[in-house]
This record gives sequence, structure tokens and C-alpha cells, in this order.
Amino acid sequence: MSVLPFLRIYAPLNAVLAAPGLLVVAALTTPNLSGRSRLALTALLAVIWGAYLLQMAATLLKHRAGDLRDRTPAIAIDVLAVLVPLAAFLLGGTPDWSLYCGVWLLKPLRDSTFFPVLGRVLANEARNLIGVTTLFGVVLFGVALAAYVIERDIQPEKFGSIPEAMWWAVVTLSTTGYGDHIPQTFAGRVLAGAVMMTGIGIFALWAGILASGFYQEIRREDFVRNWQLIAGVPLFEKLGPAVLVEIVRALRPRNLPAGAVICRSGETGDRMFFVVEGRVSVATPNPVELGPGSFFGEMALISGEPRS
Amino acid sequence: MSVLPFLRIYAPLNAVLAAPGLLVVAALTTPNLSGRSRLALTALLAVIWGAYLLQMAATLLKHRAGDLRDRTPAIAIDVLAVLVPLAAFLLGGTPDWSLYCGVWLLKPLRDSTFFPVLGRVLANEARNLIGVTTLFGVVLFGVALAAYVIERDIQPEKFGSIPEAMWWAVVTLSTTGYGDHIPQTFAGRVLAGAVMMTGIGIFALWAGILASGFYQEIRREDFVRNWQLIAGVPLFEKLGPAVLVEIVRALRPRNLPAGAVICRSGETGDRMFFVVEGRVSVATPNPVELGPGSFFGEMALISGEPRS
Amino acid sequence: MSVLPFLRIYAPLNAVLAAPGLLVVAALTTPNLSGRSRLALTALLAVIWGAYLLQMAATLLKHRAGDLRDRTPAIAIDVLAVLVPLAAFLLGGTPDWSLYCGVWLLKPLRDSTFFPVLGRVLANEARNLIGVTTLFGVVLFGVALAAYVIERDIQPEKFGSIPEAMWWAVVTLSTTGYGDHIPQTFAGRVLAGAVMMTGIGIFALWAGILASGFYQEIRREDFVRNWQLIAGVPLFEKLGPAVLVEIVRALRPRNLPAGAVICRSGETGDRMFFVVEGRVSVATPNPVELGPGSFFGEMALISGEPRS
Amino acid sequence: MSVLPFLRIYAPLNAVLAAPGLLVVAALTTPNLSGRSRLALTALLAVIWGAYLLQMAATLLKHRAGDLRDRTPAIAIDVLAVLVPLAAFLLGGTPDWSLYCGVWLLKPLRDSTFFPVLGRVLANEARNLIGVTTLFGVVLFGVALAAYVIERDIQPEKFGSIPEAMWWAVVTLSTTGYGDHIPQTFAGRVLAGAVMMTGIGIFALWAGILASGFYQEIRREDFVRNWQLIAGVPLFEKLGPAVLVEIVRALRPRNLPAGAVICRSGETGDRMFFVVEGRVSVATPNPVELGPGSFFGEMALISGEPRS
Repeated sequence: MSVLPFLRIYAPLNAVLAAPGLLVVAALTTPNLSGRSRLALTALLAVIWGAYLLQMAATLLKHRAGDLRDRTPAIAIDVLAVLVPLAAFLLGGTPDWSLYCGVWLLKPLRDSTFFPVLGRVLANEARNLIGVTTLFGVVLFGVALAAYVIERDIQPEKFGSIPEAMWWAVVTLSTTGYGDHIPQTFAGRVLAGAVMMTGIGIFALWAGILASGFYQEIRREDFVRNWQLIAGVPLFEKLGPAVLVEIVRALRPRNLPAGAVICRSGETGDRMFFVVEGRVSVATPNPVELGPGSFFGEMALISGEPRS
Repeated sequence: MSVLPFLRIYAPLNAVLAAPGLLVVAALTTPNLSGRSRLALTALLAVIWGAYLLQMAATLLKHRAGDLRDRTPAIAIDVLAVLVPLAAFLLGGTPDWSLYCGVWLLKPLRDSTFFPVLGRVLANEARNLIGVTTLFGVVLFGVALAAYVIERDIQPEKFGSIPEAMWWAVVTLSTTGYGDHIPQTFAGRVLAGAVMMTGIGIFALWAGILASGFYQEIRREDFVRNWQLIAGVPLFEKLGPAVLVEIVRALRPRNLPAGAVICRSGETGDRMFFVVEGRVSVATPNPVELGPGSFFGEMALISGEPRS
Repeated sequence: MSVLPFLRIYAPLNAVLAAPGLLVVAALTTPNLSGRSRLALTALLAVIWGAYLLQMAATLLKHRAGDLRDRTPAIAIDVLAVLVPLAAFLLGGTPDWSLYCGVWLLKPLRDSTFFPVLGRVLANEARNLIGVTTLFGVVLFGVALAAYVIERDIQPEKFGSIPEAMWWAVVTLSTTGYGDHIPQTFAGRVLAGAVMMTGIGIFALWAGILASGFYQEIRREDFVRNWQLIAGVPLFEKLGPAVLVEIVRALRPRNLPAGAVICRSGETGDRMFFVVEGRVSVATPNPVELGPGSFFGEMALISGEPRS
Repeated sequence: MSVLPFLRIYAPLNAVLAAPGLLVVAALTTPNLSGRSRLALTALLAVIWGAYLLQMAATLLKHRAGDLRDRTPAIAIDVLAVLVPLAAFLLGGTPDWSLYCGVWLLKPLRDSTFFPVLGRVLANEARNLIGVTTLFGVVLFGVALAAYVIERDIQPEKFGSIPEAMWWAVVTLSTTGYGDHIPQTFAGRVLAGAVMMTGIGIFALWAGILASGFYQEIRREDFVRNWQLIAGVPLFEKLGPAVLVEIVRALRPRNLPAGAVICRSGETGDRMFFVVEGRVSVATPNPVELGPGSFFGEMALISGEPRS
């Protein structure tokens, strides 16, 4: 008996419960809150905490039963989500204990399938990302130094030290532009213009590195997955490996529920279909069933006419 | 008899009429409007509404005639564009009824070929986009919590609650930077700097995911379309499949009106041409007509000399 | 006799002269300018105008001599650069005539090789770019409508009409954030947060479309160019077309001046070289000359040892 | 005996020392600094300077011993890092001499492996980047000219000259949006909206060019490196070159320390492994050692079952 069905229920529950919990934490900090609504919000917080306590218990039980392998981070998150608010409540006493429910921010990361991919991309591109961050730091300090030298006599209260100038530099380099520190001299404005353009360039570098990193990682994942899907289809054995590689790349796997309609007669065809798992019925006058390894839709693709 | 020609006239009309209609709606809300211009604008609105009424009638008639398949969203948009302003006018009575013409915003989406592509990209990348949005939310709340703790004593009116701090956090994380909430403490500024850099990073992630998603979708579309174009050209049968695949990728289909000049003698050649449909005349002293399957321009490509 | 050498001198002169010319135009608008410096700047403007007059004459003469084909845009830019300031000076009379020298902004576009590439990318991606712009417009109007409804009672002077609200919407959607219009209500701030995230998303779409468009265009150009370079090298005839395609993709053409050193003995090799045009001397004890079709550097690549 | 181990210690020391050094420089410019902490910070600066003096000596000694080839930039950085602060201290006398320690900003660039890659990408994309920068300049001047004409009568103190209008234009075009210069007329606001959208577009162009440039450069590097790794594996000789090329592209080289666990029995397999260098032990009941050229993990990939 697999515990996977249970995990599938727990996983969204984990993430879904965190959102109202954190909103309650936020609401509890608003100043004009009547005693009654404060009580109601605290009760809601307690309920969510209780749900997380149950989850933790379930996770720990499953872990003891040996059903979960390599789930140490998930267990740690479950335990922290229970213990940190509890400890804050017992030890703190002040209303600030609710802030420690902020640890529930870890919950959405617990079962996500995106963060491992993000982690791999960041790891693959670590050298480039560290390089751009270094470049950002070097530019930030150099620009702050220049702005300090240029503007310190004109606006001593705003550019009177390098840390003040760095605040301006980071606000400008990230193109945030609060508008609290603005250079007044001509040289300072030329510098600011150059800083903005450099900021856009560094931003673009970051985007470029992450874009190429993501593309390569997703491409590699898709290739391996599609190759596995294709490996069992007899039709493709006749083709040379180069075409096979290209077909593997053009494929999009699609999981369909039973009874779903894939395409209708008379539609214009812009793709063909391969059956990897399960069966497909063709609803023609004399119905045909297609099993794994069969394919359909190729006539519309070659002739350009509507589907038959 | 196809209704396609009619649809081709209606489709741009739909989008083109929405623009002046919405501009009139905007103009009607400006305060210093004389009674006469208000009347004129309302009349213009009525005219556009009338045009949409006619369109709806045409769409419904065609639908009843069975000429339109799978056009439910288009019909829904046409009906809404007529009924919502009418209901608002009849039921509301106040000048605000014109705001309900905002439903015409749906009109440009009605016949666009871009939004299906966008929808497919978003669907393909859903996991990653949800992941980045989750990351955005987690960072947003965590940062607001930290800013609240750091700044609440210094600026209680601006960072006095987590919702206030979240307003600052979202304005900073998106690098918008209104400048109404600005951290004053040293720790708050270091946090703000980190938030801006994180905001740029999240932005870059988004751009990277969408860029790779778009590239893959467009690449897949182009590949299928070009393969269809090439399938009928006898020349390519001699080539191995690997080269064919590469040629298919390097192709750009180009639809030309009759009589258009493709290239002139004497130009430097950086491409060759394949005729897929129709005929091409070569305006040499003794004219030649090239039909589907023939190609030209290859001499300039191989020799690097001007076109003959 | 080719006129290309002359054009090569004129082309950068065109772009280089425009920069000081436009700076002079900018300087002439500053208020506290003494009569003497105003005269000097005007004289400088006249000199640049004279240079452009000479260029126009040269271009027209060459055109009449039949040396320039398909240079209509360049001729038009040259003529406009001369005639527009002249007409403004003769007809205007006021100091504003110098503003018409702004037509020199066209000069840098005249001989650029980047703008044709940009034009092709924009043309290839026209459907997607128009789609995103439509999406931008729809979101802009919808958001302005919502902000108008939400904020008009609280801040009638800033959100009192849809055009005012659209100003706020465009400033926020582009993440510019001047800070002159800021929503005050809770609903308005939630809307603003959503607008900023949408703005980032639209921005990312734009970047993604342009990135994939640029990548495809550059890839196609490189492929065609490298294929031409490789076509004449006998070594590659032995290889199958699939490997050839891959080699063509990995190549980077490099133009070297005579006497340049390509690589030194003892360096770590991470590439090999193919000679396409010209000759390469190997400065070993007994010198060897390599002509087109020969290659070198492959030993370092295979063995991983320093170059011999 | 190689000096590489020493360099490996020096390289991070170079970058790590620069950070506290520059922070001290920044701290020294803050106004309310007691004499004692000023002395302590100056002493810290002297210590870091001393460390850089030792490094310079080491680098120069190694260079004289002939151990370092082609390290001229590194030597120059080392010498500048020592001489510039010394000269500033001896000649300047004022507290400003510490600002000259800003030359240590060069230190992080000294041994980075990212900046050569960045340099190659910038060099490869130089034409496009210069083109976008030209476009940025043309748009910047044109927009400033238009804003000057539109707004000079309404806000003469903020748009009264083209340089003032250019300051607004650069702040808006980069979507920084300080909020010090804001157009007030209707035409000026429409212009500003167009400028923001253009700014996003130029930004996106930049990101797109850098993204495609990075992807191509990294792809070329990976291809050459993987090809070298694969060249010695006998298994791959049986495969055709097209598949080989595809396998080379899908590979990720991974350097593992001795004793590291690559994968465990029972895991779901999404990759297979090739041994290029060193040996891998399979911890099955009867242990097997795999040497270069062997591979494992392919069973999980083909069957989709957990690893055995």
C-alpha cells in the first residue's frame, strides 16, 4: 500500500493553509483591531497550528513506518512549523509571538516541484550568477564613490558619506528610483544616466543567464523524458537516429483523462499523435482502437486538408 | 460559399471599434465637459453600440446557418458587448452606465491569433510560473515581516503593520519605487537593497521562463509548418533526414503577392529560395518560369558573387 | 574603381558628426548662455551643416554616376539633413530653427548594419509583438477603469477621471513609479500590487519574444554565412552532413589583420582553426605556410595538452 | 613544482580582502566618527594594504621565476592596488587619500573566470549592443526634444532646456522614475507613456541580445568541452556522428570528490552516467569497479523502474 495518495492530499493542504495563516499574522499587526476580532484571528491561527500539528504527526508516523525516503527537509519544515510558533507563544508572551508563524513561509517550498529545478539551474549557472553579482557589487561601490565625490559639497545631507551614496546607487542601479536622493549637479546627472543604463544592462545579463540556464535545463529534462516515452514505440526503429533525436525534441507529452476528445474530424491538422500508454478510440463509422505504438493524425499533417 | 471573407472584414472592425469606444468612455469621465460635447460623445457611443449590435446579429445568423464551428467564445464576447452596456443603461440611470462599455475590452481578444499561442506557452510553463509566483509571494511576505520588525519603531505611520510593510515591499520588489514609503534605518536600507536585487532576480526568472517557453513553442510550430511545406518538394528526397531537419529549421516561409520582386540581378546573395506554391518568373533575356519544387538563388550562395 | 572606400570614410563621419551637432542643439536651449558662446555654438552648427552639405553632394554625384544602387533611404536622409535646417533657418527666424537640426538623429541609422537585423526580427515577431501591445493596452484600460472606480471618491483630484487614472496605470504598469499618483485605499493598493506584477509579466513577455526572435535570426544568419565559408574546404567533404551541420553551428568566423598572432605554442587549447581565406604561417623552427582548406590546433583539442 | 596551489590560495584572498577594505573606506567617510574608531579603521586599511603588498611581492617573484605566463593584467592590478593608495597617502595628506583604495575594486576581477566569458559575449554581440545603444541615444534625444517643445511653457524650470528634458527622458526611459520631473500637459503625458513603453522595449532588446549571446557562447563552450570528454570513451565509437553530437549536447560534466555517492539503489532514474576519468565502485553484494569508458544507470532510464 503506497502512501502517495495521502501525500497528494497533504501537499496542497500544506501550501493552502499557509496563505490564510500568514494573512492572519499580517492582520494581527494592524493597529485598530477590536479585541473580539483579535480573538477570532488568534483562534484561526490556533486552528491552522493544530492542522500543522496533525500533519507533522502523520509525516513522522509515515517516516517511522519507513514509507518516506529522503524526506528530511519536509520533516524539518513540518517540525519547525509546529515548534517555532509554540516556543514563541510559551516564551515570548507579548503579541509579537504571532510573528514567529512566519516560519510557515517554508511550507509552500515543501512539496514544490519547481524549486528543485530552480536549484539545479542556479547550481549550473552559479559561476555566471556569482560573476554578475560581483559585477553588481563592483559597479555599486564604484558609482557610490563617484557620486560621493561629485555631490558631497552640493548635498552634504544626502551624499555626505559613501554609505549614503550607496543607498542612492542601489536605488538607481536597480531602476527603483524612490526619488529621495537625486543628484543635482550636471556631472552627477550624467553619472546617474550611465548608472541607469548599466543597471538595465546588469539586469539584462541576469535575465539572459537565467533564461539560457532554464532553457538548457528544461531541454535536457524534456529530452530524457521524451526519449524514454519513444524508446518503446516500434514505429521509430526504422528511422535513423538523427531524425529520432529531432522527433524527440519536437514532442510534447500530454496526459489525458479517460474519455477525452483529442481531435475532431474536420479540424485543420497541425500535429500528429503517438500513443505511448493506454488506448485511443477512433469514432469513425467502424470504430478502431489504437494501442501503444500506433499513431494517427499524420494524413492531415502531410496533405494540409482537414482531418478525416 | 464561405463566410470567411465576411469574418475577415468583421475581425479588424471589432478591434478597431473598441479603441474609439473606450476612448469615449474615458473622455466621458473627465469633469469639465460641456453638455454639448457630452451629448456628442454619448451619441458616438450609441453608434458603436449599434455597430456591435449588427455584428452580434451577423455572428448569430452565421452560427445558426452552421457556418461557424467552435466559435462559442466569439459569440459570448459579441453578446456581452451588446447586452452589458444595454443593461447598465436601462438599470443604472446614472452617468456611470458608460463604464460598463469597458466590456468592449474583450473585443480585441476575440479574433487574435496571438492569445492562443500565449495560452499554450503559459500552459506549458504553468509549473514554473506558479513556482516563481509562489517564490514572489514568499519573498514578499518575508520581506514585509522583516521591514515591519526593523522600521516599526522609527516610522510607525508607514511601517506600523505588516499590510503597510507589504505595500512598501511590493512597490520595492517590482522596482516601481513610488517613494512614499522609504526605510530610514541602516538595517532597513540594507534590506531594501537586497529586496531590489531579489526583485530583479525574480523578474529575470520570469523573463527567462517566458523566453524559453516562447522559443520552444515557436520552434515547434515552425518545425511542423516548414516540414509540411518541404514534404512536397522532390529535390529534398535525395538528402539524408539529418540535413533535411536542419534545412527545415533554417527556412522562413514567405507569402508574396502576385507580381512581387523577390530578388534582383546583381544583389549580394545571402539566401536561396524554394518555390512551394505558385510560380516564379525569372526576368532574364529568355524568361523562365519556375514551378513548385524548383529552387533558385543557390549560385550566389555558393560562390559569394552578386546574383545573376 | 569602387566607391566603397569613400563610403567607408563617410559612414562613420555621418554618425560621428551627428553627436556634436545634437549636443550643440541641446546647449543652445540652455537659458544662461552668453551672446559669445551662443555665436560660437551657432558657428559650429553651421560647420557641421556644411559638412553634411558636402556629403549630400558626394552622395548625389555618386548616385548620378550609377555607383549606388538601392540607396534611396540614405539619399533621403542626406537631403533631409541639409534641407530641413536650411528651411527652418530661412523661414523660422526665431532661435527655434536650431531644433530642426534634430533631423540629424536619422544620420546614425543611415549606415548601421544593426537596424536591418532589428527590422527583420520585428517583422518576424510582428504578430507576437502586436499581441503583447494589445494585451498591454487592454490591461492598461482595464486597470485605469478599476482604479478610477476604487479611488475617485478618496482622491478626486488624482483619480477623478479615467485619463488621470490611465496616467497612474501606465506609470505603474511600466514599473516607472513617479510617485505623483499613489492609491490610498486598501483595494487600490492590492490592485496596484497586481498591476506591478502584471507589468513585470508583460515586460518579461516582450523580452522573451525579442530574445527568441533575435536568437533565431542570428542563428539563421550565422548558419548561412558559416555554410558558405565551409563549402570550399575540402577536409569537410569526408564528413557526413549531420556532423557538418553541427560543425557549421559551432564555428565563429574571425577576420584577422595581416601579421596577427592567432595562438602561441604552449597555450592550453580550447579550439581548433580552419583557414578559409588567406595564409597562416606556423612559426616553428622550420616554418610552414597553411593555405585555404588547411586546419591546425586539433592536437591540443584532442590531447588536452598545451599547444605545440 | 607548480605554483598553482599557491595561486588558488591567493585568488580568493584577493577578492575576500577587497570587501572589508572597501567597507572600511566607506565607513571612513561617515561624518560622526570618533577619533578612536577612525584610527582603528585606518589601521585595518593599513593591514589590508600590507597583505596586498605581500601578494604583489609574491606575484612579482613568481613572474621573475618564469612561472606565470600571460598574467600581465593580474600583475598590473596587484601593483596598482599597492601603489595608488601609497601615492595618495604620501601626496594627498587630506583624509581623502583613503578614497584611492577604491582601486581595490579591480581585485575581484583579477582571477574571475566569469569576466572572460562576459568579455567574449560582449565582443560577439558588439554590433547588436552598439546598435541598441545607438537606438537608446537616438530615442533619448528625440524624446527630450519633444518634451522640451511640449512642456517648456508650462514648466520652464523643469523642462526649460534640452539638457533638463534629457534628464527627465533618461530617468523615464530607464523606468527609474525619480518623480522630480513629471510632465503636466496631456501631450506630455501621452509622450511619457510612449517613452516608458519604448524604454521597456529597449530593455527587452538588451536582455534578448545578451540572453542569446550567452546561450550561444555557453553552448559552444560546453560542446567543445564535452566533445573532448567523450572523445576517449570507446562505447561511443559505435554510434553515428549525429547521435554523438546530440549526446554531447545533453551531457553535463560533473566533478566528484573521492568517496562521493552518485546514486543509490531504489531511486527513480532520470539520467545515466558515463565514467570519463577515475573509477566508480558499485556497492552491490559483489562489488564491481568501473573505469573510464564504462557507463551505468541505463537500466533505470530505459525501463523507468527504480535503480538496481
